[in-house]
Order: sequence, then structure tokens, then C-alpha cells
Amino acid sequence: MNKTLTPRELMKQIKERIKANIDNPIWLYTLSDDELEIYLKRLEECDVLSLPLYGIPFAIKDNIDLKDIPTTAACPDYSYLPSESAYVVKKLIEAGAIPVGKTNLDQFATGLVGTRSPYGVCKNSINPEYISGGSSSGSAVSVALDMAVFSLGTDTAGSGRVPAAFNNLVGLKPSKGVLSTSGVVPACRSLDCVSIFANDTKDARIVFDIAASFDKSDPYSRKMPTVDNSALLSFTFGVPKKEQLVFFGDDAAKELFYQSVESFKAMGGVLVEVDFTPMLEAANLLYYGPWVTERYVAVKDMIENRPDSFIEVTKNIILSGKTKSAEDYFNAEYKLKAYKRQADMLMADIDFALTPTTGTIYKIDEVIVEPIQLNTNLGYYTNFMNLLDFSAYAVPAGFRENGLPFGVTLFSDAFDDRKLMLLGEKYMQISSYE
Amino acid sequence: MNKTLTPRELMKQIKERIKANIDNPIWLYTLSDDELEIYLKRLEECDVLSLPLYGIPFAIKDNIDLKDIPTTAACPDYSYLPSESAYVVKKLIEAGAIPVGKTNLDQFATGLVGTRSPYGVCKNSINPEYISGGSSSGSAVSVALDMAVFSLGTDTAGSGRVPAAFNNLVGLKPSKGVLSTSGVVPACRSLDCVSIFANDTKDARIVFDIAASFDKSDPYSRKMPTVDNSALLSFTFGVPKKEQLVFFGDDAAKELFYQSVESFKAMGGVLVEVDFTPMLEAANLLYYGPWVTERYVAVKDMIENRPDSFIEVTKNIILSGKTKSAEDYFNAEYKLKAYKRQADMLMADIDFALTPTTGTIYKIDEVIVEPIQLNTNLGYYTNFMNLLDFSAYAVPAGFRENGLPFGVTLFSDAFDDRKLMLLGEKYMQISSYE
Repeated sequence: MNKTLTPRELMKQIKERIKANIDNPIWLYTLSDDELEIYLKRLEECDVLSLPLYGIPFAIKDNIDLKDIPTTAACPDYSYLPSESAYVVKKLIEAGAIPVGKTNLDQFATGLVGTRSPYGVCKNSINPEYISGGSSSGSAVSVALDMAVFSLGTDTAGSGRVPAAFNNLVGLKPSKGVLSTSGVVPACRSLDCVSIFANDTKDARIVFDIAASFDKSDPYSRKMPTVDNSALLSFTFGVPKKEQLVFFGDDAAKELFYQSVESFKAMGGVLVEVDFTPMLEAANLLYYGPWVTERYVAVKDMIENRPDSFIEVTKNIILSGKTKSAEDYFNAEYKLKAYKRQADMLMADIDFALTPTTGTIYKIDEVIVEPIQLNTNLGYYTNFMNLLDFSAYAVPAGFRENGLPFGVTLFSDAFDDRKLMLLGEKYMQISSYE
Repeated sequence: MNKTLTPRELMKQIKERIKANIDNPIWLYTLSDDELEIYLKRLEECDVLSLPLYGIPFAIKDNIDLKDIPTTAACPDYSYLPSESAYVVKKLIEAGAIPVGKTNLDQFATGLVGTRSPYGVCKNSINPEYISGGSSSGSAVSVALDMAVFSLGTDTAGSGRVPAAFNNLVGLKPSKGVLSTSGVVPACRSLDCVSIFANDTKDARIVFDIAASFDKSDPYSRKMPTVDNSALLSFTFGVPKKEQLVFFGDDAAKELFYQSVESFKAMGGVLVEVDFTPMLEAANLLYYGPWVTERYVAVKDMIENRPDSFIEVTKNIILSGKTKSAEDYFNAEYKLKAYKRQADMLMADIDFALTPTTGTIYKIDEVIVEPIQLNTNLGYYTNFMNLLDFSAYAVPAGFRENGLPFGVTLFSDAFDDRKLMLLGEKYMQISSYE
């Protein structure tokens, strides 16, 4: 974006872009001129250099609170007016960022498709026949269409990575707890992460450095330990073994993935095949195991008393959490602990793992016909990440012939966020996708 | 014990002591001369100085496996013959320790009393009218009566600390995961710890250093990080505020506790009053919350198919875990996370906390009349420890006029085990209980 514009001029341009895309339900709310005034006025009273995010417009997924603006979680009946902003939003605004508005999402952040919203299907930024990915659909598309420099999403199952891949963005799924979830509508409270979308890896890094602040009021918040951030000149990276690398018939995606593997080799990386069994087994626990009960607990009053407020597919998923027992929980926890140990032993031998972000992409019509299975397919490489306590960075990895983008994800242990961002940045330089 | 004896001579003495105490059901199994032979023979082929625990006899709670000796968990119908020793037992034997036998316990390690065993009530080592404490009753009493130099217990709710207090021993409840639970019958698998009883703090330290070995086959095993072990010359210690310091009418215990506070001040400690609300609230979750479901999961097949194999009180406690839902679990986890955050903030201001290990002690007859409430009273200062992920060290703190011992517990963050042991050692020197 043109950096010589004043924030006021920039916001005017953005409002025009928003108006020009009004047929795509990207936004559930955009701030009026009056509502923007406090942010713009403050910036006009500040020196440009005094704030690291001076005048940077950002979008907020509508399950994250912005003071005095309704939060809906894409469920109109759930709507409430928060009296303060989410902890992370507050940090970003303090640093000079301007909230443009609240973005569309799969209702209650349940889904990886972007089609599960009563406000309409948020279409892909490159080809409107295709899904934008979810659940953070609007947050991704708003950045892809230059209505914001960066945006906040949430990522429990893959909602911060899948839409990045489908809209040619970077998407950071930080280590659990490093970005506070105070002021965020819970999906699975023990797993939820606030995530960051950006066009540019450097922007993502700057936003992360501001947003990653310990919040003692969030019991799930964790302090980011000091770790070695030096970029790796030579490294070992793991890729799932061949039979575990599935693309659901998408040969273009497959080819792009192998190209990205070559790029990482060219960066000095040594390729190792990894048996992804513990990751894939853990992934199955997310919706079939007891963690879906967290979604039920989060909206219990509403789903019990006003079930019609939910869209059908979401309601059914959330209600499946109602009947799980504590016995189910502990049996699943014991399994997960074993997978975690196995996965950690695999990760100990590599600096990071590399996978497709998704094996393929679908048309909106395809997802409407088959809403569960295709959603499951999209989570194949993402659903295990929070259960196994990894950090993950989704980055663009080229385009198919039909113009649709492909993405890969680097992941590593908790608190390796900065390492992954540096590696992703290098990769994008070398593969000239940035 | 006389260190000039050969292991063979020492074992002979111990067998005589065991025989002399045969009316107290301390042991569920003692190794025969034949069964001891492989251990003794190996030692006779070794240099005394080559093994840190050369010839040291130890007792094993009968929910921890010893190769080729039955494990019963104090439930005869549950008995099985393990083909290998528990990971920790293996480490100790490798270091030269000799297993004397398997000790009595509250069935399935459920209880803090020592009266809940079909093999009989293991009586207190000092006054047989009183309880020995549980669940690791036999492991504590065997060490107190010099039938072993140290012993292994387990500690989920307080089973490694309460019997230490009642038999004038030190009892280390290590940080969760630092001692492997491979080969241990689970109580609450996500919380169980193997614990160490000894007469002498130095012995406890040596045993801990050998036993604290990362076990990759135990998904709950955690690596002990390198921490500063320097003994503290000046320190701040926290004590519950007055109204939270309960002794159930035991004024002698109260007086001894305040004496121990004075001793810690004399060591250079600065006393701070701490609001124990988060600890006490967390403690309530252990039996009334969903973690009791872990006990049900651990013995599900047996309690469903052979309920008469259980003693009544234990059966009822374990069955209370059957009806909890995953919703109960997550609601409790969210509460616990909040208590943990509050507790950590309190602990951040002090080097360790000091409490009575128990507020009082009971006669066997009293517990038989009121088996639940008195057991609950005994857990007042212990039940929160594993839920809140603390390390704890129970040490002797003098005797009541009636000859019964009193004990205090030092606790601190996970992995502060060595710090606590050094502080406990210093305290015992200064208060001349050692």
C-alpha cells in the first residue's frame, strides 16, 4: 500500500474498495466514519515514527471483540456489544493499527470452508467460484483484496491456515497461549489460538511481536520463552511419507508441493521422510473425540434454548459434543498423550516439518453438496496442530494453471514461531512468491 | 543402619524385623531367600563403590511392578504377575538397591488413611492405635520400622506425604512426570506420581537423583530441566492466612506448626501470608470433579464385572466417576486453569509455601466409623498439589506430647524438587529432628 497516504486518506481508499466488493460478504461490520474518528484523531496527534503500526488498517474476525462494535460469531442471535476490545486487539490499536471492521466466518469458527455463515458465503479472492477457506474467511479475503494490511483470525482446527493457502497469504498459527484469547468467543477453549494473516512475511513478524504479549487474565496464556531466533543456514526438514501425502486427486497441488520441497532443499535443507501416523491419529480426535464438547460448553445455553439460531451443519457438529462422557475424555487424553510423545520423538530429529496446507481446494457448490467430508479433507494436514501443541506457519507456494494458489505449512514445536517465520520468509524470497 | 554388614547379613536382620512385626500387615509380599538370591549374588560380584545404592534395601508399594512378583494394588482379584519391573524400580535395582517386598496400601491407592485394605489395617509405626496414613501405608511403616532404608510410594492426592507425616519420615512428592509411572497401576493417570519415603533427607536426595530419569515409553514422563540448586540463604516463604490454617481441633499440631514457622525464620526466611483460596478450590476438584473418572477408567472392566472384588468405600468412590460427562470435565478444567493462574501468581512472590502436611491425625477406630469425612480432612493440604502441578516435600516437624509425630510440607513450582529437598534438609538440621 502507498505509504505516503495519511491514515485518513488510506481509510477512504479502503472504504471504496469495500464498496466495490459489496457483493462478496467479506465484512459483517465496517466502522463508520464516526466510529473511525477516535482512531484517526489519535494518530493525527502522534508522530508517525512513534508507533510501530502507525496507521496500518487491520481486519478482525467477528469472534474477536472490538470495543463498542457488535461481536456475532456469525450467529445474529448471539450478538453482543463488548465494552472492551480483546487483549490482542487492544495491543495492536495501542501500536497504531486501525480497525477496519469485523469479518465473516464459519459460524462459531466451526469449519474450514467459509460457507457456513448465515451472512452468506465469503468467496475466494482469486476465483469467486471457489471457497475462501474457513473459518476465518473474511479475515483472509479482506487482506488478499487489500482492504487491510493484516488481519486477525482464530485457529483451532486450521482456520488460520486454510484460508491463507486459498488466498495466497501467509497465515501464522502461533503456539497455543502466546496470543491471548481474552475477548475471543471460544470454540475449543483449551485449543483456540488467535492467528495472523498478511500478504507479507515481514508484516506478519511485526504484528506477532506486538501481539505476543503475556496476558495474566487469560488462564491459557503462556509466556514466550527466549529462544534462538537465528535463521538456519542448513537444516533438516521432515515431509510425510509418500502414502500419507494425499492430494485428493489434485495433481497440480501435488506438483506444487514437490516444487516447494525442492526450494527448501535449495535453501540448504536436508529432506527426511517422516511417518505421520501420530499426527494423523491425533487429527482424528479433534472432531470425533471429546474436544468437540468444548464447542458445546461454549454455546450450551443458546443451543439448548434457541437451536434454530444455528445453521444446521454447525448445530449438528456442536450437539455431537453433548453426549460425550468424562470416560471418553480421559481415554482420548491418554491416546493423545501417547501420540504427542511419538510425534515429539519424530520432531526431535528435524528442525521443522513441511506439509501441504491442504491437499486440494473445492468449489463452493461442491462444499454445499458435501459439507462434512470435504471439510474433513481440508483438515487432513491441520487438525492435529493444536492438539499436539505445535506452532505452524502457512505460506504461499505458487499457483495452479487455473490461477488458484497453493500453500504449504511449516510446523515445529511450541514457541518456534519466530524460527518458522524466518524460514518461511527465506523460502518466499528464494521461490520468489513474495 | 549398620553399614559394615554385607547385604546378605543385612537382609537376614531385616527378615527378622519383619517376622517380629508380623501382626502389623505392612507387607503383602516379602521376597523369599530364593527370590532375593539374584540380587544378592549380583552385588557380591560387584565392588561396593561401583553402585550408588549398593546393598540398600527398599520397599515397593504394591501398585508398582517388581518383576516376577505379584502386583495386587491391595485387591486380590486384580493380582497379576509382571514380567518386568516398573521403570523406576529397574533404575534403583541397577544402582544396587535390593527389593525387600511389596507393601500394603489403600486399595487402588484410593485413600489417605491406610485402613482401606482387605489385607488388614496397617498400623502406625509409633502408636498402633493410630492410622499409618495412606495410601502408601506399608511403604511408610516399613521404613519407619527399619525394614528398608527407603521405599517407593505413589502420590495422587497426598499418599506420599500423609504417611510420611504420620511416621516421622521425609516424603518427596516429585514434580509430575519426573519419576516414570511405567509399570505403576494407575489411580488418576494424568496426576499420578511415584514418591519416595526415607528416614534421612540425604537418602531421599540420592534415591531421587537415580530415579528421576526420563522414560520415553511413559507419555506422562517429563524431563527435569536444569535449574539452580543452590541452597537459599535468605528466602521468602508463604503460609496460608490464619482462617485457612485449620487443625481440626488439634492444638498440639497447631503449636508444632508455628514452631516450624519459627525455624524457617531462623534459617533466614521471611514469612508471607498467602491467600490459599485457589489451592483450596482446586483441592475440591480432585474427588468431586471429573478426575475421579480416571480411577473408574483404570479399573473399569473389573468394577463392572466383579464389583465384589472391591472394598465398599473404594468401590463407591470409584463408581462416582462413571457418570461424569465430558462437559463436566471441561468445566472443571477451565476452573482449574484459572486456579492455576491465580496460584502461580501467588507462588511468584515466594520461594516456597509451607503448610502442615495434615492438620491432625486420627485413630483407626475413628476412621472406620467415619471413613469419608476424616479422609477428606487429611487431604486439606495435599489434594491440590498434583492438579496445580507443584512439587512437594513432607518433612518431620516434631512430636506431640502423646508421642505422635507432626509433619510440615514445603511446596513450590514443578521441577523445584531439589530446591525443596535442600531446604528441608537445612530445616531438619536446624530444628534437630534429624
